[in-house]
Amino acid sequence: MSRPVITLTTDFGQADGYVGAMKGVILSLCPDAALVDISHEIRPQAVEQAAYVLSTAVAYYPPGTVHLVVVDPGVGSERRPLAVQTERAMYVSPDNGVISLALAQDPARQAVRLAEQRYRLPSVSATFHGRDIFAPAAAHLACGASLIEMGEALPVSALVELSISTPEPQPGGWRCVILHVDRFGNLITNFQILPHQRGIEVSAGGRRIGPISHTFSDVAPGELLAYVGSSGYLELAAREGSAAETLSLDVGDMVQIEGTL
Amino acid sequence: MSRPVITLTTDFGQADGYVGAMKGVILSLCPDAALVDISHEIRPQAVEQAAYVLSTAVAYYPPGTVHLVVVDPGVGSERRPLAVQTERAMYVSPDNGVISLALAQDPARQAVRLAEQRYRLPSVSATFHGRDIFAPAAAHLACGASLIEMGEALPVSALVELSISTPEPQPGGWRCVILHVDRFGNLITNFQILPHQRGIEVSAGGRRIGPISHTFSDVAPGELLAYVGSSGYLELAAREGSAAETLSLDVGDMVQIEGTL
Amino acid sequence: MSRPVITLTTDFGQADGYVGAMKGVILSLCPDAALVDISHEIRPQAVEQAAYVLSTAVAYYPPGTVHLVVVDPGVGSERRPLAVQTERAMYVSPDNGVISLALAQDPARQAVRLAEQRYRLPSVSATFHGRDIFAPAAAHLACGASLIEMGEALPVSALVELSISTPEPQPGGWRCVILHVDRFGNLITNFQILPHQRGIEVSAGGRRIGPISHTFSDVAPGELLAYVGSSGYLELAAREGSAAETLSLDVGDMVQIEGTL
Repeated sequence: MSRPVITLTTDFGQADGYVGAMKGVILSLCPDAALVDISHEIRPQAVEQAAYVLSTAVAYYPPGTVHLVVVDPGVGSERRPLAVQTERAMYVSPDNGVISLALAQDPARQAVRLAEQRYRLPSVSATFHGRDIFAPAAAHLACGASLIEMGEALPVSALVELSISTPEPQPGGWRCVILHVDRFGNLITNFQILPHQRGIEVSAGGRRIGPISHTFSDVAPGELLAYVGSSGYLELAAREGSAAETLSLDVGDMVQIEGTL
Repeated sequence: MSRPVITLTTDFGQADGYVGAMKGVILSLCPDAALVDISHEIRPQAVEQAAYVLSTAVAYYPPGTVHLVVVDPGVGSERRPLAVQTERAMYVSPDNGVISLALAQDPARQAVRLAEQRYRLPSVSATFHGRDIFAPAAAHLACGASLIEMGEALPVSALVELSISTPEPQPGGWRCVILHVDRFGNLITNFQILPHQRGIEVSAGGRRIGPISHTFSDVAPGELLAYVGSSGYLELAAREGSAAETLSLDVGDMVQIEGTL
Repeated sequence: MSRPVITLTTDFGQADGYVGAMKGVILSLCPDAALVDISHEIRPQAVEQAAYVLSTAVAYYPPGTVHLVVVDPGVGSERRPLAVQTERAMYVSPDNGVISLALAQDPARQAVRLAEQRYRLPSVSATFHGRDIFAPAAAHLACGASLIEMGEALPVSALVELSISTPEPQPGGWRCVILHVDRFGNLITNFQILPHQRGIEVSAGGRRIGPISHTFSDVAPGELLAYVGSSGYLELAAREGSAAETLSLDVGDMVQIEGTL
């Protein structure tokens, strides 16, 4: 059997010892695991952003990968700690929708509320469930523990889903939300472009951008372009510049995309 | 025997090639080592912050882990390069106190001043001992070299200790120092709360905060709370906000914690 | 055979899912690879900075390491995707000069333009060649694929080289460029000091700095010094401070280094 892979996605940053503590827990319980960071730079408590970032990476991992996701505004409250089995992977996260965009690609088959003491650290703190509940669960799953022994079964239809999945149609276009701004200032919208929509002329926030480009070199340096990003969503970018700055848009902002065929 | 684990904690950041060079040195000498970053975002030369961050993570690592710590305001000066054996782990670092909070949990049993040429790179630069002295020592230890062959033995009582271990009692409270501000703006003090102190009413910098909370959801969003953090120290936080901003406090600042039973 | 090592150097940052997607691709194709980040914090599209950072780390890696480098202002344009074999290592990158400083230390022996479909992902996007072309090529090479089967052979003399290799002599000194500013504000110039030049008295931007120091503790805290850095280039630093701030210099800036013997 090949080496188990565990990915980590959190809003913990990399300056504190939080991620390091979680990795120590995992390596103590499942020493052969390959640990891979997806991102620890999710904005604090930004569940939607985490859901998006995670959804862009999971399809590329080997079957059986365990994805550990801890972005958790509700730590200490009543939200449920989850483990979920899909066809291709396993997820360990709070039940707050953070894995729902990933599950839209690879649906949940089985889910449990993590409850069994023996799959947690002996002492569970009130504020760091990532270390005390989620990391040990991910490690046990990666090393072969059975999902259904880890807690009570939940119907997969009961898992929390995010409500950002589709843009709202409007006269002459769609009201979209900015899911994510990447390091280059590219704006990722929630608009999954369908093949018959690829001919539209795009305007954003009243500014004419033009037809959907194939790639950056279709426009001059500094110019705006709209294109279908590497994860299938409509993205707005400025070649060798920042669309986020040019259009003054940030994560969570609404933008009217006009599109005429 | 299971795969050796080496953790890395530095103030090198992740933009430069420094950490990458150290990891190359390690993998050349101990190819099977699992390398785990605790943090490279320690503020430049912030020995106390590094000592705190390290101390929050080490207890969770498998026995035999080698912790490589390079935060070194004295590079090129006379401070000693160390390797230390404890009951659970090994440490490689400059002798400047950076491992002293970790050693307070897991005491040193044996220490050497790293001196043997054959456990260094062939050529040692004046400015990058992390790559030329500390990384090779950690790699050799992880792959089975004997600590006492690496240099001259030092009495463990001679290792440099930080002086921040306990807060100063004051009329009506304690004069504490901020050890660390985490990514969420939570303020970690140097006050390790004892069980009989858990009933105190906390004020910080003259501002009333209230009794010690169990977790974040005990207060309303935006409100301040005091709680015992996941590493045992008194912490001040603002739920879904930043206590560092609200109280205008930063690493190294003093804060008067008033507490009445 | 020992575990294959793949290093990653990009300008993708660590907040987005881009690096995580690339690592998933690699682990799906070459599950035993050890993945090591050199840097993902190269400034966007800063080919020269990436070339410098890479060149400081590669010499320390085990023979046979695959270095995957994706800093690519020309994604989507006609620049060529490369795989290069040297005596010690393999490189996978766009043909834009980003590996040319590394190749100056360890010359190319064989190069191909990556073209074979079976060494790419089944579907290649227009904007994310790191994931779809470069990562799979690196994974296949690390797991034993033959370089020459991956595309058409190129003469190594045809690879793009950066033009920053040597400073320009001037009356009384050299006109140098700042290759990199590290986390400590140290300024790395493109001036590789020769042994007979070590006796010079340095001025930078008209400001007298003094003779070449051995290490930081040769000057008082806050003072400027010039020294030969750990990668062989002349560097300017302020002890326990930032030379970049003191001298108001940044990456790409020119600085007149005066040196009298």
